[in-house]
Parts: sequence; C-alpha cells; structure tokens
Amino acid sequence: MDTDLTDSLAEFATGPLSPSADAQVVTSLSLLDWLAVGRAGVDEPVARATRALALSEAGAGTAHILGATTLVPPRMAALVNGATSHALDYDDTHFAHIGHPSVAVIPAALAVAEAQGASMAKLAEAALMGMELSIRIGLWLGRSHYAAGFHQTATAGAFGAAAAAGRLLGLSAAQMAQVLGLVATRAAGLKAQFGTDGKPYNAGLAASGGVEAAQLVALGLGANPQALEGPLGFGAAHQGEGNVTEALKGLGEVWHFEQVSHKFHACCHGLHAALEAARQLDIAAPEVAEMTIATNPRWMDVCNKPAPDTGLEAKFSYRCVLAMQALGHDTGQLESYSARVVTDPRLVNLSQKIKVVADATISETGTRLTVLRRDGAALEAVHDLATPMDLSKRQDRVRVKAVGLIGDDLVDRVWACLIGDTTSVEFASLLGG
Amino acid sequence: MDTDLTDSLAEFATGPLSPSADAQVVTSLSLLDWLAVGRAGVDEPVARATRALALSEAGAGTAHILGATTLVPPRMAALVNGATSHALDYDDTHFAHIGHPSVAVIPAALAVAEAQGASMAKLAEAALMGMELSIRIGLWLGRSHYAAGFHQTATAGAFGAAAAAGRLLGLSAAQMAQVLGLVATRAAGLKAQFGTDGKPYNAGLAASGGVEAAQLVALGLGANPQALEGPLGFGAAHQGEGNVTEALKGLGEVWHFEQVSHKFHACCHGLHAALEAARQLDIAAPEVAEMTIATNPRWMDVCNKPAPDTGLEAKFSYRCVLAMQALGHDTGQLESYSARVVTDPRLVNLSQKIKVVADATISETGTRLTVLRRDGAALEAVHDLATPMDLSKRQDRVRVKAVGLIGDDLVDRVWACLIGDTTSVEFASLLGG
Repeated sequence: MDTDLTDSLAEFATGPLSPSADAQVVTSLSLLDWLAVGRAGVDEPVARATRALALSEAGAGTAHILGATTLVPPRMAALVNGATSHALDYDDTHFAHIGHPSVAVIPAALAVAEAQGASMAKLAEAALMGMELSIRIGLWLGRSHYAAGFHQTATAGAFGAAAAAGRLLGLSAAQMAQVLGLVATRAAGLKAQFGTDGKPYNAGLAASGGVEAAQLVALGLGANPQALEGPLGFGAAHQGEGNVTEALKGLGEVWHFEQVSHKFHACCHGLHAALEAARQLDIAAPEVAEMTIATNPRWMDVCNKPAPDTGLEAKFSYRCVLAMQALGHDTGQLESYSARVVTDPRLVNLSQKIKVVADATISETGTRLTVLRRDGAALEAVHDLATPMDLSKRQDRVRVKAVGLIGDDLVDRVWACLIGDTTSVEFASLLGG
Repeated sequence: MDTDLTDSLAEFATGPLSPSADAQVVTSLSLLDWLAVGRAGVDEPVARATRALALSEAGAGTAHILGATTLVPPRMAALVNGATSHALDYDDTHFAHIGHPSVAVIPAALAVAEAQGASMAKLAEAALMGMELSIRIGLWLGRSHYAAGFHQTATAGAFGAAAAAGRLLGLSAAQMAQVLGLVATRAAGLKAQFGTDGKPYNAGLAASGGVEAAQLVALGLGANPQALEGPLGFGAAHQGEGNVTEALKGLGEVWHFEQVSHKFHACCHGLHAALEAARQLDIAAPEVAEMTIATNPRWMDVCNKPAPDTGLEAKFSYRCVLAMQALGHDTGQLESYSARVVTDPRLVNLSQKIKVVADATISETGTRLTVLRRDGAALEAVHDLATPMDLSKRQDRVRVKAVGLIGDDLVDRVWACLIGDTTSVEFASLLGG
C-alpha cells in the first residue's frame, strides 16, 4: 500500500528508537568526520557566501556556524553548515541511494538541538534517525529519480533533515506526517550543479528547508500529509520508482546507516576502491613496471582524466591519484592535490605506466588492481567499498583523517563530547572561530 | 537553440526595458491588488505561522511585512509576504501558463527594493520584468509540467522572483544567468498542497528562494548558468515541454503580463466567467425559472460542489455562487462566503434551479449561461476571461475590490505611491500594522 509510506516514516521518526550499537558508533564517527570536513571547508566560496548572508541578516542567534563565532537563527545555521560541510566533497556517502546523508541532516539536527538545549545523546539519536530516513526515502525514489537529474543528497536529504528537526521539536506522529508533506513541496536539487558551488549549496538547502518545514508545522501551518505519495505527489512528479517495500523493509531494526562510507581520500569517491586496493599491495613507485585498474564502466566519464594539470583535475583521475599514492603523497590530505604535485615529472612518468579499463562485471563500488613489478612478480588486489570495514579500524582511520584536517587537540575535544554526558551546545561550540 | 533560453532571459532581465503603457498600468493595478489581498490575508494560518517565524528570528530589519510593524531581513520578508498574499487565493492569475505572477514576484522585488532604497518606478519596472519572465518560463515548461504535479506559481515564479531581485541588486547579464541557474536547483512546489496552507506557502518559497539566489550570486557564489536547460536541467527533470520558441517570442516587445486576470470574486477562478456572464444579464432571484451554466470539462471536478455547507465549500460551487449573486450578495467580499449565507433556504432553493453542464467546445476561460425567466423569456450570455477588459473599467473594478478589502483611505494612499514620485519604502510602509 502506497499510503503506508508517510505514516510508517512518521511513526519511526517520532517513536522510541533502538539503534544497533554499530549504528551508534558509526553516527559518532560521522559527527566527528562532519565537523572536521566542515571546519576544513570554511574558506570555500560557497562557505564564504552563505556565511556572509547569515552574518548580514544577523537575528536572534541560537545556533553556531562553521567559520564564525556569531550565533544565527537555526534555519540560517543549517544553510551555512550544510553548504560549508559539503564544500570540499569530503564528507560521507551512502551508496544504497547515492547520497551524502551527514551534510543534509546533521546541520538541521544540530541547529534545532542547540536552540532546544538538547543533550548530545538526543542530537545523535535524531541525526541517526534522520539519516536513516533519508536513505530510505532515497531507496523509495530509486535510480530513475537520480538518473532524471536529481541530486539525492538534497532531495532525499531534505526529508531526513525535516524529520530530525521535527523529532527534536517534539512533534507528534500526525504533525511529523505534515512535516514530511510540507517538505515534499520544497525538496529540490539538481545534479546539473555538479562542479559548481551549487552542489554544496544543495546540501545547505536540504538542511535549511528541513528546519523551516518542521518549525512552521510546529507553529501551526498545515500541509497535505500525503504530498510525498499519491498520483500528484513528490515521487511521481520527480520521476521516482516508488518502491515502498524496499523503503520500509526492516525499518527500526535494520540500520542502513551502518554502511555509510567515510571518505579517506580527498578525491572523487569513484577513485577510492582503487586507492584502497593499492594500499593493500603497498607498492612503491620504483617497483612498478605496469599497473592496471579495472573499474565499473560508469566511472569512465566521471573520474578518468588521463593527464591532469591542476589539483582539482587530479581529484578525478585514476592514474594521477594512484601515482600520488605510490610516490608517498597522502591522498587523504587536501594539500596533496596541488599543481606542483600533479605535474612533477616523476609522477607524470609513473602515471604513464597505469592503465584504466572498464569492466561491467565489477560493481560500482568495486575494483580490481593488477601490478606487474619490475622484478617480474605479478600482484593482484580487489577491493569493494561496500564490504564493511571493521569498526575499530574505521574509527582509527576517521580519527587520522580528522587529525590531518583539524589537529589532535580539536579532535580530542570533539571526541570527548561524543562519548561524554554533554550537551549539543558544547559540540556546536567547536564549529566556530 | 536550447542554449539561447537562459542567455536571452538574462539579457532581458538586466538590460534597458520599454514596457508598453498598458503593461505599466496593469502593473500598478497588480501592485494595488496585491497589497489589498495581502493585508486582507494576515489572519490566515499560513500568514500567522510564517510571520511568527520571521519575528522569532528577527535580524537586521530592512523590509516590511504584512501584518506586523517590525522590519525583517529581505529573504524572510519575501517568504512572509508571498505566503500571506496568496493565503486567500484572491490574487491575480495568468492563464497562459496557469500561475499567479504577483504573489511570487512582487514580494521578492519589494524586499530587495526597500533594502536598496529604490524608487517606486524601479520597483514597478523590476516587478513587471520578473512577472513577464515567470510567464515565459511557464510557457517554456508548458502543460506537461503542470500536469505532472508542479505548481507553476512556485516553480516558474521562483525564476521571476530571482530575476526581479537580481535586477534590483544591479547584477550583470552574466551574473543573472548564474542566478537563473542557481534558482533552478531550488525552484519547487507541488499542486498536492492545494487545499492546505502549503499552497500559499509555495508562493512564499518562490519569492524567498529568488531573493536568496540573487543575494548569494551577488556575494560570489557560482552556479551552473545552464542548469535551467540541457539534458539534466530543470526543465527535463521537471517534465517540461521545452518550447524555447514560444518562451522567447517577442521578448521585450510583447508583454504577456498585460493579460493578467484580476479576481473580482473571492472564489475559485473557474467560477469567474460564469459570474461575469450572470453580471451581464443582471437577473434577480425571483425571476429565475431555470439557469444553465456550460463550462469546460476541466472544471467539473474542481469547482462543481453541488450543495455546499460552508463558506469554503461555496468558493468551489457554481450553483452556490450564482445563487449568491442573484440574491444580491457581493461575491467580491470575503464575508459573503459564510455558512449562514450558503445554507439560507432561499439560496438553497434557488441553487436547485441551476444546472451545470460540461461542454468541451468551451475554452478553459469561457462560459455560456442560459436563463429561462419565469415570464417565459430565454436569455443567454457568454463570457471569456481571456477577452481583454477595457483598462479604465479594469481600474475601476480593482479599486472597488481593494476598497472593499482595505478601505478608501488606504487605497488612496497606495494609489498616490503608485502614480507619484515616491520610494519603494513608502509603498512598503503601507503593508504593516
């Protein structure tokens, strides 16, 4: 029954939750990762522009923003923090629906949590619920929606942001159904913005729109609670597949968010499986006679630039990032992606020994790397990003990444918030300045 | 050529304009009409909720809002004023693309004009340009877009709002192309909200989103200037027809806005042609033996409630509003639509003599009314809302309507602003209180 979707999600969003222990740990990692990539992105143009607008509007400040110490109203904080944390495209990704859950949902949850003086535990719970809900809306919309041009981070994300905000505002299930209906009339975002500031702006839109929808329903604005579903609903209008069964399967028991993928390399996600495979082999540049990467065909026109000249182009080049890694550059650090590094003759020379081949038998998250060593040995490694990473290993790597971005001391303070009995305001106070 | 659309609109939006004298007069009428229906709507739930949010956020106030005396930031003023002025659904309509141009564009133009201290002439020019642009985007999107579930007032309206705001901010044509590209990633609004506060909220979203997009581009945010067109652009994703020729025909010379239709009856626009036809015949209730309204079939499931019990239901009932008019109730006054009026036995009795028939040979804006009088005489009248109304007659009727809503004195003050050498701030100061 189509009409079950909104009601089921509204019950989930407002009722008691029993997230798995793994889902809770992954949420903590995503909160740390989100704050680290957000702080690292504050000088990007989209971060500067949204922050300038927020500071010019000023207003009754209850919420922290990345890159400033002035507090602003929740809607505006969600816009700034969503856009800023997606500015580097270094935040987490969920491949089930192809979206970035954290950057749409965490800013919305945080802005409302602060205004409510909510505990860190309440914030984390609401954020996890919202991210899980956004993934399930994404599964309901399906690939047809994404293929039509919609940026799931923004469209599916807006529903998760609204649900997280609504939960923290203490809305009833009936009100939450109206929130989901209201946000359906404004959930938006086009892939046509990829490669421009419009991409991270989409994340801010989702976060901010979610906060606004929840606030307005709390203030008495009524909406159609069936605007998500139905013949003229969001799904049909936005070319969604409408797979309700898939969307609701195991809701409340299965936490898809556990499989969120953190980025450990500051480049296109299509390159990560190859870098992880190369990491297994740990080959140094002088040993390489030939290297071949087999990848799913969908990546060939996304991240296969043959000979980059700039750091930005390098982020979309198999040959370049593999050569960087073999030459000892840290592909997790933003500074590694510079014109100086990518045009270094040693790197150019090595990259010419690397072949990229399309192989439809390999999944979108997988790769197969073969290396012929100068000593004649042939090595092979496979990696699939969809294979769960051991949690303690994942924790170590998120920490290493975060330390590289914001330093030891700040990471320790963030982690203390995440594991201690603190308030969301303490966590939020680490965004600014 | 598809790629001409954005560039042509950006040139139009930023270059010198030579609007026809008629278009300028109609713009003045729409500004008066917009202010009158906006002030009349301040107690509606959507008006209260958006206003409460604006006042709770506060901030650097530069813009007036309907229903309060506190000034708020431009983005927020556009949200409040867009939603409030559409709350009664009594604002103007353009049938070429089926949208309400004023409620999306005027609030955006006004909020920015005030902040800039722009003259009333500059405000009117920017508003007219934005409304014309929104109609042309609506023509480009076409009926397939509307049929898919999108509310053109909001989707096409957002482009007009953004263009008007961008013009008043003094953006270049290249920046304006980016504004149109950026607003493409957030233009949204579903017809699924019809019958709820979500419908007028859609107008506020368009106005506010347009202001935000223009402000952010002015602050240096970059967007894809081709996000409107192209295979993954707004039009394709949102099931638009993409008729560029139709959209650009006569741009800058032909002003479609001249044909905007002002509502002179406080009910569904589908009923207006019938009321105008009955007005020609001027039949009083005791004379009626039988009355037959022939209308386009599309209205049969929109506004043909057979026996309303409430004022709201009456607004969607041919039989009821025709009986009201014949009994001497003023269908232009909000107070006429009450349960007391619509359940009056005399009215119920008369409405039973009225038949409604679907006739596919009649246009969506037309009607044919036949009346059999008790004395045996048969009368007939036809009316088509698309037939231009003489401008001086239109001016008289807009004034009568506005006086009914906000009183003589205020109408005189608004009109003095519109024809005198004043600033947009003087006009805006008439919104509040």
